[in-house]
Amino acid sequence: MKDKLLFTPGPLSTSASVKEAMLRDLGSRDFEFIATVGDIRRKLLEIGGVAGRGYEAILMQGSGTFAIESVIGSTIAPRGKLLVAANGAYGRRIAEIASVLKIDRALVDCPEYRPLDPEAIAAALRQDPAITCVAAVHCETSTGIFNPIRAIGAAVHSGKRSYLVDAMSSFGAVPLNVEECKIDYLVSSANKCIEGVPGFAFVIARRAALLETEGFARSLSLDLLAQWRGLEANGQFRFTPPTHAILAFRRALQELDEEGGVAARAARYQANYRTLVAGMRAMGFVEYLAPEDQGWIITSFRYPADPKFDFAQLYAFLNERGYVIYPGIVSEAQCFRIGSVGRIFPDSIRALLAAIRDAMTAMEIALPMVPAS
Amino acid sequence: MKDKLLFTPGPLSTSASVKEAMLRDLGSRDFEFIATVGDIRRKLLEIGGVAGRGYEAILMQGSGTFAIESVIGSTIAPRGKLLVAANGAYGRRIAEIASVLKIDRALVDCPEYRPLDPEAIAAALRQDPAITCVAAVHCETSTGIFNPIRAIGAAVHSGKRSYLVDAMSSFGAVPLNVEECKIDYLVSSANKCIEGVPGFAFVIARRAALLETEGFARSLSLDLLAQWRGLEANGQFRFTPPTHAILAFRRALQELDEEGGVAARAARYQANYRTLVAGMRAMGFVEYLAPEDQGWIITSFRYPADPKFDFAQLYAFLNERGYVIYPGIVSEAQCFRIGSVGRIFPDSIRALLAAIRDAMTAMEIALPMVPAS
Repeated sequence: MKDKLLFTPGPLSTSASVKEAMLRDLGSRDFEFIATVGDIRRKLLEIGGVAGRGYEAILMQGSGTFAIESVIGSTIAPRGKLLVAANGAYGRRIAEIASVLKIDRALVDCPEYRPLDPEAIAAALRQDPAITCVAAVHCETSTGIFNPIRAIGAAVHSGKRSYLVDAMSSFGAVPLNVEECKIDYLVSSANKCIEGVPGFAFVIARRAALLETEGFARSLSLDLLAQWRGLEANGQFRFTPPTHAILAFRRALQELDEEGGVAARAARYQANYRTLVAGMRAMGFVEYLAPEDQGWIITSFRYPADPKFDFAQLYAFLNERGYVIYPGIVSEAQCFRIGSVGRIFPDSIRALLAAIRDAMTAMEIALPMVPAS
Repeated sequence: MKDKLLFTPGPLSTSASVKEAMLRDLGSRDFEFIATVGDIRRKLLEIGGVAGRGYEAILMQGSGTFAIESVIGSTIAPRGKLLVAANGAYGRRIAEIASVLKIDRALVDCPEYRPLDPEAIAAALRQDPAITCVAAVHCETSTGIFNPIRAIGAAVHSGKRSYLVDAMSSFGAVPLNVEECKIDYLVSSANKCIEGVPGFAFVIARRAALLETEGFARSLSLDLLAQWRGLEANGQFRFTPPTHAILAFRRALQELDEEGGVAARAARYQANYRTLVAGMRAMGFVEYLAPEDQGWIITSFRYPADPKFDFAQLYAFLNERGYVIYPGIVSEAQCFRIGSVGRIFPDSIRALLAAIRDAMTAMEIALPMVPAS
């Protein structure tokens, strides 16, 4: 059976060899598994540009949200306060985590079509000395926008706060130096642009910051410092790790290297993105974001004005032909999303575009559509 | 490469076909994946004997401990109090979770070599009306003891408290009816006796109890009620699920059926256990528990008195030959553990026993050993 191609924000399509790496059962305390976890942790620091620079890579079971919650719940002091800069659903989710954990928090709320404003964040920090930590999303997957996390990092650093970056959908696909961006905690997940399978997420933490969080954890399972200490003590997870997903991730990291590292992967995803946008525009689709704000991870397209357009019909039509796209999540506009990441290539995008063209014909929508004025 | 056989408490050895079920990438919001999750949830209720009886199966990302924490953090009221009946490391871990979550808790502490005493629990409930929930471990994996969860359930039920059972290492391998045992929340994990791979755990919850927990959750990621509501609303996880581990689990459930269900699996594991204990006794090894308290999941053996015995050497010797056993975790005795569960058969046990015999010879320990008096 041939799998559908996933043009989604993840889980993504992965290579056959990544999946075949899971055809083994390793003991979670076995020598080989421990060595594998160590290799992965070292490699993640390299990708973040911080090998030997005082940072630690910590793997955490669960989805990316679990790791985000782990950082928030484990590194913010009992009377700390989190400032979340949000221009989409994933930023707002960080704020929601803080609320559930009863951590004081403030929001710099930004329109979804505009990148986060470092100056607004700097102003908020000047106004509210209670804030101890700032969180921002690198690529806000709800729109695909790239936020200026380096400029935000400079503002946070000069304001002497700690800095959490949700790099879920950008890490491995957008060149980034954790130290230069002044990031204390960067979070991403196995099933995003490293092209592994879901089952765990990871945190790149500045060691000196992490070591100051003793006693802060609000959870046993999601205790980031304890998880790190466990990995350091004997190379093992405190609780059962997803051994197969970790084997797949080791293989995915090798394939990232073989492709030429982050720069080469970014180039492939950019080619995917350019192919997608050119083809969609040729049909008359319009992106939600201005091109200069749009990243190459995932793109939100507005619903066409034509009343014959029916997203459910488009989705089902594509699904039957083996292409999975994604609904929108922008609050103020009707959109759908198409991802450019995972084990897909410009040819995969061209095949998708042809199927979208067929779907539009099936809906009796004349192409190219004339954009609403 | 041939994998080592895992005689551990999990992750376990799984069938080739279970692992091959992971050679696919499914979208986490795709029709087929949603149907798969629905099938799994129905099947889990069947195995627990409560299909159509007012119970719900809820899958939760992470290890078993994540799901235990999910139940404790989501179902105990803000001023609730948890009584943990503990005779081993896993019971004590439940108490630790409550401590970290700042939930009031009491402990009925029982010697590790003795099953939990339902009468002691009933007495504790009579003495302390503040207790709202009781937790107990079915098979305490630190020793392998079976606790009388049905008798405890009767005591908890007549004391009108809610009842959490950690059935991590027993579910699927020990016939059990959730309703007859008066269990409100049963927790187990994908990589135990259902013989799936690690990546998620699950809760079988009494729906009426669950519905009374609105607003209790102390975590966003581990919010049990929200996770259930998400699954009910559209069949989807709230946050990225481990799609490959779930495909493996669907296959593992089919293979459990093909083997003849829980009774047949219990019979195979019992045969493994009998083969193991007979062979170990023949060499002069002594079990930590009395045979009448010992389950057929995992067995703790005392270190022999012979000063030439070196567990690290035994472990490494077996590991080189492709057999993984487990260190002990009993606090008052030096033990090691050998599991009888997973995709292993009496022949696998016999091969392990032959390797142990060779290891003892290599350590120059004469067999059979004479037990210390």
